[in-house]
Amino acid sequence: MKAVRVHEYNKRPVVEDVPDPKVSEPLDVLVEVGGAGLCRTDLHIVEGQWAEKSGVTLPYTIGHENAGWVREVGSAVTNVEPGDAVILHPVATCGLCRACRAGDDVHCADSKLPGIDTDGGMAELLLTNARTVVKLDPSLRPVDVAALADAGLTAYHAVRKAVPLLYPGTRVVVIGAGGLGHIGVQCLAAMVPAEIIVVDRSPAALELSRELGATHTVQADGGQVDAVADLTGGEGAHVVLDFVGEGGAEAEGVRMLRRAGSYFVIGYGGRIEIPTIDIISSEINVIGNLIGSYNDLDELMALTAQGKVSLHTKTYPLEAVNDAMDDLESGRLRGRGILVPSRS
Amino acid sequence: MKAVRVHEYNKRPVVEDVPDPKVSEPLDVLVEVGGAGLCRTDLHIVEGQWAEKSGVTLPYTIGHENAGWVREVGSAVTNVEPGDAVILHPVATCGLCRACRAGDDVHCADSKLPGIDTDGGMAELLLTNARTVVKLDPSLRPVDVAALADAGLTAYHAVRKAVPLLYPGTRVVVIGAGGLGHIGVQCLAAMVPAEIIVVDRSPAALELSRELGATHTVQADGGQVDAVADLTGGEGAHVVLDFVGEGGAEAEGVRMLRRAGSYFVIGYGGRIEIPTIDIISSEINVIGNLIGSYNDLDELMALTAQGKVSLHTKTYPLEAVNDAMDDLESGRLRGRGILVPSRS
Amino acid sequence: MKAVRVHEYNKRPVVEDVPDPKVSEPLDVLVEVGGAGLCRTDLHIVEGQWAEKSGVTLPYTIGHENAGWVREVGSAVTNVEPGDAVILHPVATCGLCRACRAGDDVHCADSKLPGIDTDGGMAELLLTNARTVVKLDPSLRPVDVAALADAGLTAYHAVRKAVPLLYPGTRVVVIGAGGLGHIGVQCLAAMVPAEIIVVDRSPAALELSRELGATHTVQADGGQVDAVADLTGGEGAHVVLDFVGEGGAEAEGVRMLRRAGSYFVIGYGGRIEIPTIDIISSEINVIGNLIGSYNDLDELMALTAQGKVSLHTKTYPLEAVNDAMDDLESGRLRGRGILVPSRS
Amino acid sequence: MKAVRVHEYNKRPVVEDVPDPKVSEPLDVLVEVGGAGLCRTDLHIVEGQWAEKSGVTLPYTIGHENAGWVREVGSAVTNVEPGDAVILHPVATCGLCRACRAGDDVHCADSKLPGIDTDGGMAELLLTNARTVVKLDPSLRPVDVAALADAGLTAYHAVRKAVPLLYPGTRVVVIGAGGLGHIGVQCLAAMVPAEIIVVDRSPAALELSRELGATHTVQADGGQVDAVADLTGGEGAHVVLDFVGEGGAEAEGVRMLRRAGSYFVIGYGGRIEIPTIDIISSEINVIGNLIGSYNDLDELMALTAQGKVSLHTKTYPLEAVNDAMDDLESGRLRGRGILVPSRS
Repeated sequence: MKAVRVHEYNKRPVVEDVPDPKVSEPLDVLVEVGGAGLCRTDLHIVEGQWAEKSGVTLPYTIGHENAGWVREVGSAVTNVEPGDAVILHPVATCGLCRACRAGDDVHCADSKLPGIDTDGGMAELLLTNARTVVKLDPSLRPVDVAALADAGLTAYHAVRKAVPLLYPGTRVVVIGAGGLGHIGVQCLAAMVPAEIIVVDRSPAALELSRELGATHTVQADGGQVDAVADLTGGEGAHVVLDFVGEGGAEAEGVRMLRRAGSYFVIGYGGRIEIPTIDIISSEINVIGNLIGSYNDLDELMALTAQGKVSLHTKTYPLEAVNDAMDDLESGRLRGRGILVPSRS
Repeated sequence: MKAVRVHEYNKRPVVEDVPDPKVSEPLDVLVEVGGAGLCRTDLHIVEGQWAEKSGVTLPYTIGHENAGWVREVGSAVTNVEPGDAVILHPVATCGLCRACRAGDDVHCADSKLPGIDTDGGMAELLLTNARTVVKLDPSLRPVDVAALADAGLTAYHAVRKAVPLLYPGTRVVVIGAGGLGHIGVQCLAAMVPAEIIVVDRSPAALELSRELGATHTVQADGGQVDAVADLTGGEGAHVVLDFVGEGGAEAEGVRMLRRAGSYFVIGYGGRIEIPTIDIISSEINVIGNLIGSYNDLDELMALTAQGKVSLHTKTYPLEAVNDAMDDLESGRLRGRGILVPSRS
Repeated sequence: MKAVRVHEYNKRPVVEDVPDPKVSEPLDVLVEVGGAGLCRTDLHIVEGQWAEKSGVTLPYTIGHENAGWVREVGSAVTNVEPGDAVILHPVATCGLCRACRAGDDVHCADSKLPGIDTDGGMAELLLTNARTVVKLDPSLRPVDVAALADAGLTAYHAVRKAVPLLYPGTRVVVIGAGGLGHIGVQCLAAMVPAEIIVVDRSPAALELSRELGATHTVQADGGQVDAVADLTGGEGAHVVLDFVGEGGAEAEGVRMLRRAGSYFVIGYGGRIEIPTIDIISSEINVIGNLIGSYNDLDELMALTAQGKVSLHTKTYPLEAVNDAMDDLESGRLRGRGILVPSRS
Repeated sequence: MKAVRVHEYNKRPVVEDVPDPKVSEPLDVLVEVGGAGLCRTDLHIVEGQWAEKSGVTLPYTIGHENAGWVREVGSAVTNVEPGDAVILHPVATCGLCRACRAGDDVHCADSKLPGIDTDGGMAELLLTNARTVVKLDPSLRPVDVAALADAGLTAYHAVRKAVPLLYPGTRVVVIGAGGLGHIGVQCLAAMVPAEIIVVDRSPAALELSRELGATHTVQADGGQVDAVADLTGGEGAHVVLDFVGEGGAEAEGVRMLRRAGSYFVIGYGGRIEIPTIDIISSEINVIGNLIGSYNDLDELMALTAQGKVSLHTKTYPLEAVNDAMDDLESGRLRGRGILVPSRS
């Protein structure tokens, strides 16, 4: 089969023929890839930024946002069967540790990240196991949802955790309405009756946010903390979801909170710096967020099947991976790039 | 009546005669003070550190940890009657804002802090209202519990918030087993089945912690983060309750967390500094804590009446307030100083 | 002022002049009534069904679903001021018991029910206190929202309790889409991403439900349990909200549950009868629901101001109370009857 | 190996030689049985009461409360290794359905119950899989904990669900301090600061309950509802855990509740019958409880290793299964009977 392989760091991946993977274990699931999302992380992998952390041996196949159709299953697989359309959870978990037994997949004590530390989905076939595959509603096509496997899941998970805090009359700020953030806005609009205030530098992103359900938008031009104060009667927001997490957003986000409010860290790159006196005197919280669980992904697919979440995508043939990477790197790529194997 | 009055900042308070306060409003409650806790905050008030923040007009009566007996009540008071022993919640709340209507007293939109921004309890009588008074079990004496009104309540509130996280098999670290922390250890031992690891510099504080229910103790000699790692199988603790919040504890506390763990800020003075990548990659939380609610105080009194929480105290006559302050300032005061009016 | 007074049970109330009530206590609030909802309970009061339970002394003024404008406030009122439009929570609570201090108003240890056990709002003026009044958004008119004070609040409260159970992919059944139920459907559509299945005997009620957000409707013609099974893949619903609670609905509702599902009792009149083996073998729950809290009402008003909840009403002059009662009794009244004093 | 096999219903099982089970699948775990609890359910199986429900083909090996040591593991097992002492969760789950992925093992869509519908643990060896085995603390012996696998787990699970309701100052009633109930009392004493009121007919059971942590005991002599009212200031209990669920306990249990209280059904045989008006006017709940999750069992083992839960047991050689059954049937067996294979 064809696969997108990294042979050497700082060199673009090549599309080459590799042997087809085979089902050998009872829980194995062989998936024909219908779409593999391209993400900045893929650029960083190629640049070698993940080399030490992942410890992966080159060459290997990248692609960590995958969806497709089940071709073959091992003897113990009961949740999917050949022909089923599926999306793949990005973490292949052990299923046996306490975290797995609590449904807290991302804290699995013994997991793999296909496309990061083992072969991924920019290929015609992907061998995975029954624990990663979420069956899709017949209305959904793998190519349309692939990028929800990671970026979408991360946004959904944070919103899901915020649901109990966002009853009628509350306000939530979304910082950054880009790839993750604009899915976050859709999840909020579908799941909570709070006022949604979106902060972004880009007028186009704000315009899109209004279409997707934002109650108010604020252009990040330096006055965004004051603008949020104005929109919240001077009190601040109950919840701030920060999809940026760097470049000052992480300090502004905390300043946008009301008393007893919660700041959700989703984007990263920056640094939280808060005097402990400020944390206790207003009793605020800083909440970490990491990807999402298998059931989170299942729930996100339910929302997507209801038409409440959608993504702008641009498809490329698998062989055109480097064109897609060029477009992503140069900023020409609007929406999410999806690689589609020609077999599909 | 006699009262401890601050006339001028940076001068010790004086004990002087002032007119007895009178019940005039329907919800007023007049309390004969049985004990008023002395706290470092009182020293800071005298030093003028709170002058700007509280905006109080001098002279006024200090004392924010108060308990006593109801002497007289207004026409609309239904929760206590003359003769009842009571402890006083430190925040006199409006009862009408959303926070009050949700039982979230410390976030009241219109509250007073007796002893801080209005007359307090270092006096023979204290005029308060029905919303502050918690009726004591007959087994409890005001003089013994007064210091639980603020210090104890703060420790209880943080532990109460941590209860859902501390099921059997979990570990909780308590940083700082001083005035608040040693109450925290007692609350934990009474309320959760987790292993309790106490970290403090003082061998005596650790010895006391073991008597109060700590499973393990760690001397803070520079190796405390490693010691906690060893005691938790290299995984870290599910919850860290930091009663220090300064001097490096706030950085060490975060490093003691396991994946998905929560660091509770209770003490203050320092500064939380965490890269956002560390917050998301381990999905940790930083949880603010501020005093506690009226019902928290009621619950703490239930624990105290069950004999599960107790305080070391040293009593002084009200007139000896400056001896007590001397002892506190010089480090001679072991346990909590309690001022007792001579009428009591 | 004019007021609708019951002088004798089993005789219709009379509209007569009574002295204007006056503000005398610090927390008193005098409200000009803008609308008073008429409810079956008012018919039952007149029939004497509540005589023993309420213990009220005749004559008195009925009306327990009230909204209007503040005319005058007592000296301690801080949450509203003259001129404010308000809706009144149906329970006048003490504010001092543990339930009140936890925001759990309906379990107040010392409460009054205006219009039930003390003078209510079918009058030009109503004397209440600061704890009952919820300030309205400027977009809302008292006459339009009055009936949400009790019926709407009860529906909202049950839905609010069900929110954590109703994530994407779940199903909720609403039994009975009448006065309360059709508000329940609106609250569900506004607050949860679950599929909403409405069961009712009336095709018109089902038609209205679809307009208000129901995903599926089922006519209650004897096959409703099977129909719900079909709509839920044979598994049953995660939550059943039973706004009927009698006439067989209460048995069918339990049969509509899936494993680990929860049946919410809101309507009443019937009797729950379930073998304990059935409760444990499927681990189902039966959840009681009683009116709602002050903050629930505040949240419902936020939803209403967002345009997410609305009521069909028919207004009558206060003097026409008996025409309204006739219409209600005879089934001629579509939507909720609202009495409007002529001063308004 | 030796195994206790049922060949025909209504005939006692026989101890006979059967082939040793073998590890063949990657997740298989072969356990040397150290103890197999004997339970009334085993008598009911022999009587054929479970024949239709379980659909098991005779002959088969009974025994559903098992603990022992791992002898051999399949290639994919990562949570235990040969030599490890383990207790076995009573439900062998699929690991792939939504319930399994949420840690809600007992609602698995595709599970087996060893000893009920497939070969169980009254044998020298038991072939199970990695999803059932909970590793024991070195301080625990399989023979001592085996009976906690089912009876203990069920009691623990119900208490665990009640923890959020049982803060300081609350009261919990335990109805029935027998096999499950006396473990429930120990779990409560270890996990919640509530007052524990135990109701039982047997003075010996009440005496044991006091030793295990009951605050008050009430002999069930017909006046138990009144006695609980007296012990709760006339208000009733916040939570009632009913380990009996028949013979009138299920009606009395509901009458022991306070407003907004919750009645937990654990024992069964009887029938819940409550007018819906009573459910809504006091806003009470009826909560089903079914066994417990894998993580619940892990937590119970943590409590047991801490010395907070213990069981009275009487051991019998595996070959003496019918003596043990005689003793259980005749009431001569005090504590739990545990069958011990001679190899152990």
